[in-house]
Amino acid sequence: MRSWSTSRPGPRWRRQSNGVIDRHLPVPDEDLRLEPDWALQDPDDYLATLRSTVPQLLRETGIDAGEVIGVGIDFTSCTMLPTTADGTPLCRLAALRREPHAWVKLWKHHAAQPEADRLNAVAAARGEPWLPRYGGRISSEWFFSKALQILDEAPAVYRAADRLIEAGDWLVWQLTGVETRNSCAAGYKALWSKADGFPDPGYFADLDPAFASVVADKMSGTIRSIGERAGELSSEAAAWTGLRPGTPVAIGNVDAHVSVPATGVTEPGTMVAVMGTSTCHMVLGSRLAPAEGIAGVVEDGIIPGFFGYEAGQAAVGDMFAWFTRQAVPPEIHDEARRTGSSVHAVLEAEAARFRPGETGLLALDWWNGNRSILVDAELSGLLVGATLATRPADIYRALLESTAFGTRTIIESLEAAGVGVERVVACGGLAERNALLMQLSADITGRELAVAASNQVAALGSAMYGAVAAGAAAGGYDSIADAARRMVRPPVRTYRPGPSTRAVYDALHREYMGLHDHFGRHGTDVMRRLRALRTGAA
Amino acid sequence: MRSWSTSRPGPRWRRQSNGVIDRHLPVPDEDLRLEPDWALQDPDDYLATLRSTVPQLLRETGIDAGEVIGVGIDFTSCTMLPTTADGTPLCRLAALRREPHAWVKLWKHHAAQPEADRLNAVAAARGEPWLPRYGGRISSEWFFSKALQILDEAPAVYRAADRLIEAGDWLVWQLTGVETRNSCAAGYKALWSKADGFPDPGYFADLDPAFASVVADKMSGTIRSIGERAGELSSEAAAWTGLRPGTPVAIGNVDAHVSVPATGVTEPGTMVAVMGTSTCHMVLGSRLAPAEGIAGVVEDGIIPGFFGYEAGQAAVGDMFAWFTRQAVPPEIHDEARRTGSSVHAVLEAEAARFRPGETGLLALDWWNGNRSILVDAELSGLLVGATLATRPADIYRALLESTAFGTRTIIESLEAAGVGVERVVACGGLAERNALLMQLSADITGRELAVAASNQVAALGSAMYGAVAAGAAAGGYDSIADAARRMVRPPVRTYRPGPSTRAVYDALHREYMGLHDHFGRHGTDVMRRLRALRTGAA
Repeated sequence: MRSWSTSRPGPRWRRQSNGVIDRHLPVPDEDLRLEPDWALQDPDDYLATLRSTVPQLLRETGIDAGEVIGVGIDFTSCTMLPTTADGTPLCRLAALRREPHAWVKLWKHHAAQPEADRLNAVAAARGEPWLPRYGGRISSEWFFSKALQILDEAPAVYRAADRLIEAGDWLVWQLTGVETRNSCAAGYKALWSKADGFPDPGYFADLDPAFASVVADKMSGTIRSIGERAGELSSEAAAWTGLRPGTPVAIGNVDAHVSVPATGVTEPGTMVAVMGTSTCHMVLGSRLAPAEGIAGVVEDGIIPGFFGYEAGQAAVGDMFAWFTRQAVPPEIHDEARRTGSSVHAVLEAEAARFRPGETGLLALDWWNGNRSILVDAELSGLLVGATLATRPADIYRALLESTAFGTRTIIESLEAAGVGVERVVACGGLAERNALLMQLSADITGRELAVAASNQVAALGSAMYGAVAAGAAAGGYDSIADAARRMVRPPVRTYRPGPSTRAVYDALHREYMGLHDHFGRHGTDVMRRLRALRTGAA
Repeated sequence: MRSWSTSRPGPRWRRQSNGVIDRHLPVPDEDLRLEPDWALQDPDDYLATLRSTVPQLLRETGIDAGEVIGVGIDFTSCTMLPTTADGTPLCRLAALRREPHAWVKLWKHHAAQPEADRLNAVAAARGEPWLPRYGGRISSEWFFSKALQILDEAPAVYRAADRLIEAGDWLVWQLTGVETRNSCAAGYKALWSKADGFPDPGYFADLDPAFASVVADKMSGTIRSIGERAGELSSEAAAWTGLRPGTPVAIGNVDAHVSVPATGVTEPGTMVAVMGTSTCHMVLGSRLAPAEGIAGVVEDGIIPGFFGYEAGQAAVGDMFAWFTRQAVPPEIHDEARRTGSSVHAVLEAEAARFRPGETGLLALDWWNGNRSILVDAELSGLLVGATLATRPADIYRALLESTAFGTRTIIESLEAAGVGVERVVACGGLAERNALLMQLSADITGRELAVAASNQVAALGSAMYGAVAAGAAAGGYDSIADAARRMVRPPVRTYRPGPSTRAVYDALHREYMGLHDHFGRHGTDVMRRLRALRTGAA
């Protein structure tokens, strides 16, 4: 039994694609510049990837298309595009190709902040009941922020769009000929819930009368649960990919969330931390219990039958990378070169020798704001305790520790709301590379931390959903839990909290929370005012 | 007219001397190790310096000894030693040479902290009236801390000491044969005041009955004002130096304080900032008005006839040096090399281009604790506002600004107590080298800041006092004010506060004070607790 995961385009294909479009629209002979904070993609790049990658993989692996029993797709989210009723991207139409709003808005398109601000203000004013499910705040990255920006800035494009759709769902549509919408993206990014559906049209009308029927006009009332089958591979898509027509295709999924079962987690009690430039935390619960500052809680959002809780830290690996690039002196770079090592590794080796508390430093890990639990992008990084004896490895360790304190804060907030977190499974680049970070995370959270075996958890998760779309009768599985039992290898390594570190890290976490609440909960608004002064000066 | 300044031994003479003795006593064939925080010197090094430096200067400059009309001495303080009744240093005696307490305790000898703690506790318990004159706290560097340590740890040395004396006064004694004590060191470092003399013997008895008569037994009841004549050069000292016997010698003085008239300041209204690794601030007042957190206020302590106020910042240049050594990435070092410049200069050039507030950063300049106005060595450095876009020049500028905010805080505390500070004269290495720091200090304090012309202000100040010791009749001057009018060149450069920076720096200083009071005045004691955890871990 084999199943394919067709993951989002990776760097390997960038050369042939338009990649991330954030400066000029890729229109020949014209200089169509984008404003700051824009990030677009070309949907035809996705199809090009399907046409090249899948046949190439079949060739290289020698696997027969008949062995592929199912297809699963995961995608970044919210990455969305406007299309005609038959799914044709508007940017493919000659009349609209020069219009930025006709292209795919990538997840990290941040130009819809004014729209997000309006969505938040109107929701707060109306006391929208769904707002607490999203930690009280909507992101500029989300679906309706992006949709409303189209209406605001390009009403003609908005009118021309028969559909506004997640790119992952659009790709499933292209493969199967069937338009579906998945519960994960709809729940986490488009304010949908299984119990209540989408927000009331009155909410959308308050934003703009022309936006009142956005759901009815541009989307699809029916949201399908992840784990279901969207349809079968069309003849056309079979020709693109070299796979067999009729191969089952799973409902679309989101890259972070699809990773959860790929770490072996299909039940409550274990948090999955996808640790990279930022960290995404996911944990399952049996009931709806809005915790403070979560990014979202969605029924059927991660594993069918459970409420999936998502939280996040906005800068983790990004913060360590900032430090090694901006604040590490030449001697350490030289040592890394001399030993054929890396700056990270040199710092890690030294920082690993310290005892808890020995650096005398404490940091707030807010170099990119605070996502959970304060949901405040205006917050910024803080370091306290510096002396003339402070060395780079001290600061490096304090930054690692700060992200673990941030994770502990999220866990304690979830547990306070009744969502148990007994252990953690980590995956992603940082989990594989940074052993000290893993040990500190175990020590500081006081929980066993396992590192997932797969270094391609998103791809494995999609493959698992492909196998579920096929079903046991076709050689797959009837549930994602069954798939996890058979398709996931045990963790490669487990970090246990050092008992001797407990008392000091409890004390340091109290200090962290003291700073967290003072700077984050309006004990002082100095961080916000510094940001305002910076904006005013620039 | 010429007058000589014999300044403390500089690095140039270190090769011939025992320098700072902080590891082993310089006793041949024995390994007599010192404990941490000890810092001693050899008094015979001072004499060796007189014997080599002064003759060499006469030779090199071609100046006739007859042209030298007076001698002035300044010294670090409190640098003190035990001697016999005739001034022989106890460490010169064979019986005591192996005893660390028989040597000179250098100003930065910090091993008397337990004694300083006792001095503070007993003074607070007794409500000693002089305590507020010292910002409410005695330093381990001061005279009675060091004296009490001798009694505590080496009672035999204490008993053998007929005299405990400042090294500067001892040197004047060696030159003239007359034992004197100067009002500056006695006032700032030995709790003496012109109005009340030394603390009551009951205070010393409460510390240790054997310490009750320390002043009467080991010191000298008569304190002589700076600006007076101590005596004349003895025949023996004339032979050492090549100067003429009978040359007038001024009462001893302290290196920082003697610099004040050398910047031209002899009246209230202008603060002198000696800016180097740390910064010392001095300003004159017409009356006693204890301000918060000053290091001391002494009548006749700086200029005869005035109350001299001293305050300080514990790390200024030291903090910038820490940053360039520990936290600046290779590119900037490379650029400094490529352009034949320095890391400081590269950072300064970039940081000078920012507008106030543009870094988005704010720091508390407490990398070595806070001297004024909080008098708390347990405090530590803080940086807030960091983002993934923060660059080294941003942090560098924030550190420069933080020291200027610290200076403004001291000025405002003095002014609140009625000690006016209308302008600032800066001297010392930083004042000459770091134009951006000077401009920021002017902008942030809102005061004109002039840089003194002399780059050897302490030596010039001593020479001026030498001229006053000679008197006008002998070709010198009858007052230090007269000497200042004739011997001091006008400032080389004046920095004026930029009017457009005012509003932002007022706002940023409010933020600085918010952090200052929260972290420094027990809004949170996190800095102290981090230090305790660090000590516990190490």
